[in-house]
Amino acid sequence: MISVNKLVLLGTGLIGGSFALALKRAGLVRHVVGVGRNPENLARALQLRVIDEASHSAATAVQGADLVLLATPVGQMGGLIRDIAPHLADDCVISDAGSTKQDVAALFREHLGARLAQCVPAHPIAGSELSGASAAQYGLYEGRRVVLTPLPESAPAAVARVRALWEACGASVFEMSTGEHDSIFAAVSHVPHLLAFSYMNALLDRSNADACLDFAATGFRDFTRIAGGHPAMWRDITLANRAAILADLKANAARLAQAIELVENADTAGLTDYIERASRARNAWGSC
Amino acid sequence: MISVNKLVLLGTGLIGGSFALALKRAGLVRHVVGVGRNPENLARALQLRVIDEASHSAATAVQGADLVLLATPVGQMGGLIRDIAPHLADDCVISDAGSTKQDVAALFREHLGARLAQCVPAHPIAGSELSGASAAQYGLYEGRRVVLTPLPESAPAAVARVRALWEACGASVFEMSTGEHDSIFAAVSHVPHLLAFSYMNALLDRSNADACLDFAATGFRDFTRIAGGHPAMWRDITLANRAAILADLKANAARLAQAIELVENADTAGLTDYIERASRARNAWGSC
Repeated sequence: MISVNKLVLLGTGLIGGSFALALKRAGLVRHVVGVGRNPENLARALQLRVIDEASHSAATAVQGADLVLLATPVGQMGGLIRDIAPHLADDCVISDAGSTKQDVAALFREHLGARLAQCVPAHPIAGSELSGASAAQYGLYEGRRVVLTPLPESAPAAVARVRALWEACGASVFEMSTGEHDSIFAAVSHVPHLLAFSYMNALLDRSNADACLDFAATGFRDFTRIAGGHPAMWRDITLANRAAILADLKANAARLAQAIELVENADTAGLTDYIERASRARNAWGSC
Repeated sequence: MISVNKLVLLGTGLIGGSFALALKRAGLVRHVVGVGRNPENLARALQLRVIDEASHSAATAVQGADLVLLATPVGQMGGLIRDIAPHLADDCVISDAGSTKQDVAALFREHLGARLAQCVPAHPIAGSELSGASAAQYGLYEGRRVVLTPLPESAPAAVARVRALWEACGASVFEMSTGEHDSIFAAVSHVPHLLAFSYMNALLDRSNADACLDFAATGFRDFTRIAGGHPAMWRDITLANRAAILADLKANAARLAQAIELVENADTAGLTDYIERASRARNAWGSC
């Protein structure tokens, strides 16, 4: 039985709201309680039937729940997990939707040491430019990927349940360790963001920055799209996945230093190899 | 009178072909000769009426021409300019479509020292994933920008003629010095390409590169799109604009080193400022 009697969303925005809507459509959830700090957003979630009940208290809301999804920014999860810990039922599965996993696993370990069998850290790879409950949509996870990073203590039945629910949302589910997850997403998401922020800062330092921005075209547009990311969110992700990001940033700095050397030496053959390796791999990569 | 009696395209691909088509549509050119090294491409250009005559000899083709457009990769322009120099008429205007300008200006200066008044270096900011004469299209330059970088010696009438022709293609025309051009395009185009190549190389170095590429999503897709660029073309652009690129790459390396320091120190306030400055500027930038 994977179906959920009482689902509690800690954080009632795009990510949690879309999960609730997909489960409702699949007929897999009876009652959804949305918790959040923004009364207008909660009212909107109720009005749109994303949730069936709104609450300002995580501790109260989770009582009697059989599934709790932490769907706030990772920075808010520690306090929430601490608050709900005394109120969780023995059959409640606790999962999350954070984009870093070692830190969330550590929070589970810190506050829910006796309930680690019930904890299943997860990362749905989906999003939108929009946010808030009004952006929630039934099909957000269709064809997308969800990574589960079970703890050694996670009960196989709890992992299987979370997997089945995400699959019911239309997602493909993968499993890996928290460390592997954070290493991969440092490389393909967090570090590209920091490189894009770095590039924008270097551009803004220029005395002709305005003229540059004026003549910037489609290559610039795509390369810097991720530089428009939300500062507090990306600061938190960076701090949350600091070790993996730092190692990867240093590897990037070394490769950049090599490019500088090739250019400085006008090394035609070396530049060709350097560019060809990158270009071949990028063109072989299946678009998404 | 801006209209052209005999236009010679040295290089009969997307860029030159689209220029010819736009002028034909505007009724501003009587006869177009296409020069190129690929017989099949020239045959296709004739068949599609992009050109009216095909030639394998630049020296022969330019005789009697009143406009010559160099529209090959910049690496081939030196030989072509040398070859045509003895055969140019006194009223012929010589322009180009290269994406770097100091090096093209130097080639004009080297081979056409007596005809610098007739030379107008230019850079149409347009392109496509496609190439060759069969990709040429009437509207390629509509609403796009063209930068003219006149030499101190360029005759005002020659500059005005080139400007009017590009405007007739639907482009907005700007003028700046060759150095200003190369500095701006290093910053907003050439360096982003090298940063994207560098990032791809660092990613491919990883022992889990395949898993990374497997989980890479839309942020990666956009950030690395320009890493798929043509290796020989980007090697040549890099070498052609070496000084400006080198200075900008070094500024980027310094900004990246700062990011590494902020992450290493878990400097929350510093990271926030760093990301906010980038994000604000990117979001303020008008999309294109």
